[in-house]
This record gives sequence, structure tokens and C-alpha cells, in this order.
Amino acid sequence: MNGKIICRITGLAVLITAGFMLVPLLLACVDGQVRNIWSYAITIAAMALFGGAMQLVSFKRENTFYAQEGFAATGISWLVMSLFGGLPFCISGEIPNFIDAFFEIVSGFTTTGASILTDVEALSRCHLYWRSFSHWLGGMGMLVFILAVLPQARKTAGFGMHLMRAESPGPSVGKLTPHLRQTALILYGIYILLTVICVVFLLLGDMPVFDSFCIAFGTAGTGGFAVLNSSMGGYSPYLQGVVTVFMFLFGVNFSLYYLLLLRQFKTVFKNEELRLYVGIFAASILLITLNIRGMFDSGFEAFRHAAFQVSSIMTTTGFASVDFELWPAFSKAILFMLMFVGACAGSTGGGLKVSRVLLLLKSIRRTINKALNPRRVQIVRMDGVMVREEMSNSVNAYLVMYCAILLVSVILISVDNFSLGTTVSAVTACFNNIGPGFEMVGATGNYSGFSWFSKLVLSADMLLGRLEIFPLLVLGSADTWSRKR
Amino acid sequence: MNGKIICRITGLAVLITAGFMLVPLLLACVDGQVRNIWSYAITIAAMALFGGAMQLVSFKRENTFYAQEGFAATGISWLVMSLFGGLPFCISGEIPNFIDAFFEIVSGFTTTGASILTDVEALSRCHLYWRSFSHWLGGMGMLVFILAVLPQARKTAGFGMHLMRAESPGPSVGKLTPHLRQTALILYGIYILLTVICVVFLLLGDMPVFDSFCIAFGTAGTGGFAVLNSSMGGYSPYLQGVVTVFMFLFGVNFSLYYLLLLRQFKTVFKNEELRLYVGIFAASILLITLNIRGMFDSGFEAFRHAAFQVSSIMTTTGFASVDFELWPAFSKAILFMLMFVGACAGSTGGGLKVSRVLLLLKSIRRTINKALNPRRVQIVRMDGVMVREEMSNSVNAYLVMYCAILLVSVILISVDNFSLGTTVSAVTACFNNIGPGFEMVGATGNYSGFSWFSKLVLSADMLLGRLEIFPLLVLGSADTWSRKR
Repeated sequence: MNGKIICRITGLAVLITAGFMLVPLLLACVDGQVRNIWSYAITIAAMALFGGAMQLVSFKRENTFYAQEGFAATGISWLVMSLFGGLPFCISGEIPNFIDAFFEIVSGFTTTGASILTDVEALSRCHLYWRSFSHWLGGMGMLVFILAVLPQARKTAGFGMHLMRAESPGPSVGKLTPHLRQTALILYGIYILLTVICVVFLLLGDMPVFDSFCIAFGTAGTGGFAVLNSSMGGYSPYLQGVVTVFMFLFGVNFSLYYLLLLRQFKTVFKNEELRLYVGIFAASILLITLNIRGMFDSGFEAFRHAAFQVSSIMTTTGFASVDFELWPAFSKAILFMLMFVGACAGSTGGGLKVSRVLLLLKSIRRTINKALNPRRVQIVRMDGVMVREEMSNSVNAYLVMYCAILLVSVILISVDNFSLGTTVSAVTACFNNIGPGFEMVGATGNYSGFSWFSKLVLSADMLLGRLEIFPLLVLGSADTWSRKR
Repeated sequence: MNGKIICRITGLAVLITAGFMLVPLLLACVDGQVRNIWSYAITIAAMALFGGAMQLVSFKRENTFYAQEGFAATGISWLVMSLFGGLPFCISGEIPNFIDAFFEIVSGFTTTGASILTDVEALSRCHLYWRSFSHWLGGMGMLVFILAVLPQARKTAGFGMHLMRAESPGPSVGKLTPHLRQTALILYGIYILLTVICVVFLLLGDMPVFDSFCIAFGTAGTGGFAVLNSSMGGYSPYLQGVVTVFMFLFGVNFSLYYLLLLRQFKTVFKNEELRLYVGIFAASILLITLNIRGMFDSGFEAFRHAAFQVSSIMTTTGFASVDFELWPAFSKAILFMLMFVGACAGSTGGGLKVSRVLLLLKSIRRTINKALNPRRVQIVRMDGVMVREEMSNSVNAYLVMYCAILLVSVILISVDNFSLGTTVSAVTACFNNIGPGFEMVGATGNYSGFSWFSKLVLSADMLLGRLEIFPLLVLGSADTWSRKR
């Protein structure tokens, strides 16, 4: 494997992350917290040193870049970024245990939003900012950012495509333009624009400026870290409504926004993934509203809380406007199902992704037809285009790995001896990058009760979920570390 | 579709089932229970009438028999058998509600062992016998029985193969001999022989004769209905040991016993499914023994209860020697995982089947290798033979349907508003034909608390699990009911 280029990419990712850390450093300066200033300064210095050293590694330009390098670079970058990213929490003593700090920042970068904090409001502003900003950074992906801003990145053959494939969520990556760098730029442009609009809408509702930015980062990255202990429960219905809408918007495939800008309304309207996404969304809200109607004063109250929670869970954000742990089992079962479905491919959301669910459903039909008529050729289409059987099979194979990881994780963290509901939903919520699950890790709960071992397992689940399994599995495969190819 | 031949097969299945009902009728006569005598007599008469009428349907011998007919015949036979099979419970008034009676007998035929009875010991002997015997009948399959005993069954082209494929558990059916009828005969021969040996061992341990037969039926079919409220908890350690061993034996692929008779020891020893089965079995017992060591007086006590429960859950039997609901979460998580794995293909056990799990694991390796080296051909072998990619893909597709049914069932029965643990484990235990789950439906619990709607959903899950999805799905497909082919 081409190890040198991976060192360079990892170094680059660390350098850029260090750059973004200047903002919390500034915040700490403004608030005059000496200990926090030091914690960020030390971390930034260490990252600059590491990242700089990695840039000194020389590699030949003509080296080609295969899928394996793409996966490995992504896996290693994310791991190293997380190791450095948690340092300020730890050095400042606000999250003294390193494993807790690591868990928290992995939860941030992977846009999960699962927290080990029992009292979020006790955290300093600089840490709250960094936590929320990590959602924003992880949402679209660090390496896609590198592709967008560094012109030399595209000089190595296959470089961009394999990196983007490895880091972007969903079963396939569509190039919006013939040039990958332009695609990455467009995606980040849309991302920034939508985030700014979100901030403006929040400010219009009289949300404090600091909260507006943090909540907007959490919404844009579909992360879910909040700045109040009540998550979104303490804000006005207007603000909750704004977040409901924007969570939904950030769960849509970003290429559709590009098509909207190009005025290709018909293509967008006919997009099968979008239709299923909206369909599941609407049906879930309707069913839950009917189910929880009796718990609220008016039908509208029930509706808006149902809409908030559905939007939050389906896009895998994880904010809460009420404690849905108290809802009837039927509503909880629907939310549980939505945890697996997740948002659209090419969005910042996690889970299986709607397009994968669509392909899985189509594959079920194909399987049945095949059993009935073994000799007839079965053709599956998506958006009018024929889906190659290979694609359909690889999505099925993905589900197999997905289930295997779920089951193994459940067994591993069951050593902590919590209830089946807590254990299963903690793994589900972390692996699908949602954050809150049920029972002990429900809307008002947190992950502080787990052992360090379980926290590491759940951190691995979050990374496996965000990077869609392959990048980390590749790191674990012996083939990757052998010298010959 | 060739509807007439399906009527004939269904009629035949009903006639034979009626024949087997003469035994409980006799038992009712011996016990002098007039009401029970009538309940069986009426049911047998109705079945004879129905089955006889179906034999009058004429069909042309030259009609070919496709996979679709195989699935439909299996699905319909099992449904009709269950509708009739529950009648005696209902007519006698011992299980007055028809849906409860239907649930109970579906649980019997599918070898699940989930019960709606709160007090098993209150049931009359004839009903206890019929309940347990339904396990034995459903274990190997009614249609395989027809293949074994009726010589004319093989005169229609494709008849036997498609029926056997539809009814036998596991990803593929191996012919032991060139003639299917002979294969079916050998399988039933082994089945009867092992059952008889089991009865003898139980009698040697001073188990009452009636109990010995019922427990042996439950063990052989890997069903799990017992005759005492304490399941197997009230019997001696020797008897529990015998049942532990025989549950394990009935979870092995029956064709391996045939190979043993043919003295092909090497082939048996090298069988990958058997090796994985034994491996998972031993590892689970070891881990659970270590985990529950402190709850018992001696290491041996812990070991034998661990072995009993592992054997019971992995073979999807569902007997209990202790209340494993009280065990630590780690042990419960292992048992939960075993619920999905299940027994070997070609045994009487349920679940995904070990060979499917093996193929799924191999497919994971294939997927990873494919992602790393897209152009290299990946070859997967099982027992030294190359597994066609098609086979591997169809097993993955099976898992997709499996997960979809699980999730939908969880949502449907969540309307009853029980905890997530109860809801998820009830569906898991029924769909995998195990019986007991956790929490409310745990080792000492039962399914009486569910609504009629949930009982029907769970009954459907049991049938879907036993018949491996296709036969029932085919019945629900519009294509099946259209006149043209």
C-alpha cells in the first residue's frame, strides 16, 4: 500500500482541523479562561507539529491511488483527528478522562451527538462551540473539504474519486460536474449557504447569537449536541419549528439542491429517494401524531412535537423537544425503525440511507420474482435507470455487515449489564449516528454510565457508522499492511 | 397456477393430520373425558370431510409442477392444517378463544413452543399430547411425510423437489439418493429412530411414560412445549442432561447421520456447518458458564444449566431448566444472538441456520475483498466446493427480507404498548421458532398478555420463520392468483 500519501493526507486533515481550532481558542481568550486558552494552544501546537512533520514525507507524484488507499486514508485521518480533537476537553480538566473526551469528540465528528456529559451547561463556551462545530466539520467530511480547497489534490490519478467514495455517505457517489474539485466546492457552497440561512432564521426568533451558531452547526451536520440540558426543549415553538424544517432539509441529498439551482425541477420532483424520504417522513408524523394526541392539549401541539422528533431521528440528528421516552410503545417503535432508515444518501445524515432502503426493498421484490420464475430476467430500475444486479447485491452485502456489527456490538457492551432495551438502543443510536436511544440513553439520558470498554466499542460503532464500515475494516485487514500488492 | 394439484396436496395433508389425531382421541377415551372425545371426534370428521372432498378434484397427470406451486401448496397446507389443528382446544373449551387456540397450534406445528397458557398443567392429557405431537409432525414437515409414504406422489414432474425445497429448512436441499422418495424415507427413518432412543433414555431416568413421549416430541421437533409449568426445571439433572444432548443432536443436519450410517466419517468430520455449529455451541457454553458461575453452588451446576439453555435456544427448542431472565445481560445477549443463528440446515431447528450464517460470514469477506480489489475474482468455498456467487447473493437477499419482516412485526405488535425488550424479543422468539424470549415473554412468562391482533401477527411470524418466508409471500403475491402464466 502507498503509505506515504496516506501520511500526507492525514497530516493535511490534522493541520486544517488545527486551523478551525483557532475559533474556540479566540472564544477562550474573550472569556479570559486561562486554562482553556492553554488547552487549545497546546493542542493546536501539537497538531501543527504532527501535521507539518507529515508534510515532509515525500512521495512520487506518479503513484496511483487505489480504493484501498482511499479507505485507509479516510479511516486513519478520522482516527487521528479524533485523538487530537478530544485533547482540549481533557487538558482543560472539564472532561478529565481521556476516553470520555475521545468518545465526546468522536460523537461530534461522526455527527452522532451521544454525550457522556450529565450537565452540558457546566461546560465552558469554547468547548461547547468546539463540540458543535465538530458536527459541522464531520457532516460534509474533512477530506471532501480538502478536495474543495486544495488545487494540487487532484494531481494524483484516482485520488479524489476514491477519497470521496470512502468518505461520502450512501451507496454511490454522483459527480455533479466532470471535475471532482468543482463538485466538492459546490457541495460545500450549498452546505455553507444553508447553514447561514438557518442561523438567520434562528436569530430572527430571538435565540442568543452563540446558541444560534451552535444549534445551526448541530442541525447542519445532523449531529445533535445542544448547549442546554433540555436539548431543544427550552426554546420557543418557533425555534423548534425552524430546527424541524432545517433538520429535514439537511437530510436531503445535496446534489438535488444543485439540480434545483440548475432549474431541473422535474428531475428533482421525480427523484425516487426524495419521494420515499418525504413519504416515510409524512407517514411517521401522521401515525405518531394520532398515537400521542391524548398526551397534549391540542392536536397541533401533538403534531409539532411528532414532526420535531421524526425529523430529528430520521435525519439522525438527535435533538429532542420533549422526552419521547414517555411516549407509547408504538410511537417509540416507529422512531426505532426510523433510526435504521436514516436520511438520504449524499446528505449529512446517517443510518442505512433512504436510497439503500429503497434498493433493499427492490431487491426483496427481485428475490421473490426470482424464486417464482427462476428463468425470467429480473430488471430493477431506480430513477428510470437500470440498477445493475451487482449494485443491488453489494447493497445487500452491506446490510449483512451492518447486522453483524450490530449483533457483535450488542454482545460486547452487554458486559455492562444494562437492560436489553438500553443495550440494543445504545448500539443502534451510536452506529446510526443518532445520539439518544431509549431507556437509560433516552432523550434525557446520557452515556456516562457505560464502562470505558463500552465507550470505546460505541466510539468504534460511531466511526463505522459515519464512514460506512469499509474504511475501518480495511484498516483491520491484514492485506492492507502487507508490503506486496 | 395449477390450483387443482394444490387442493389435492392440501387435502392429503389434512387427511393425514386427522389420522394422527386419533391418538389424542384415544387418550380422551381412556381418560373418559366426554367433552374432549367429542371435540376430537368432531374435528376429525370435519377434516375427513374436507380432505376427502379435496381428493375429488381431478387434475391431469401431465401437468408440470413449478416452484410457485411448491411454495403455494406448502403455504396453504400449513395454514389449513393449523386452522383445523386448533379446533379441539377450542371446542373442548379448554382454550375457549379460537385465536388463542390457533396461536397455540401454529406454535406447535412450527416447533416454536410459544404458549398463551398461564397454567399448562390444567390442560387435559389429550390436549397436552396433541400440542407436543404437533411439534414432532411440524419438525420434519408434513409434506416431506407425504413424499415418504405415498408412492404416487412422485409421478408428476418436479413435484417432490419443489415441495421439499419449499418445506425443508436451510439454503439448499441435498438429495441423499437419486430418488426423492427414498431421501424422504431415510430422513423420517432417522427422525423416528432418534426419537425412540430419546424416549428410552428419558424412561431410564424414571420420567413418567406420558411425559417421556411429550418431552421427546418437543425435543425431536425442537419445539419446546412442556407438560409442567416449570418447563424442564422440575426434572432431575440426569433428565435435563439427556434433553440437553438430544436437543443438540436434533439440531444437526440429518443428512450427516445418513453419511454416518454409510461410514463416511471423514466427510462428516470435515463438514463446515457442523464445525461452526459445534464451535458456537462450545464457545457460548464456556462464556455463559464463566459469566453465571457466581449464581450457582458449583462450577458444574453453572456448566450444566449453561449447556441446557444454550442447547435449548440455539436449536430453537425453547425448554428452560432455570429462569435465565435473571442471568446477567452478557449471558442474555449471547442467548439473544443464538436466537438468530439457530440450528443447522436440514435439521428440525429454526432460526437463520448455521450454514446461512456461514455463507453470510463468507460473503462479508468477499465484500471486503471486492472493495479492496475490484478487479480480482473472489472465490468462496464451502466444504471444498465453490459457492456460486448467485447462491451467496440469494442468502444475502434472504437476510434482507428477514430483517424487513422483523422490523415490520416489531412496529405492528408495539401497538400493545409493552417494553422494547418484550416487543423485540417476542418477535425474535416467534420468527425464529424458539418460544421464550425475554422480560414478559421470558422463560417463566407467556404470550397471553398480547392482543388478538398481535397474536395473529406473531402466528404469521412463526409460519414465516418455519417455512422460510417464501411460501407465505408467494400466497400474498398478486402474480400467484392471476390465471395466466
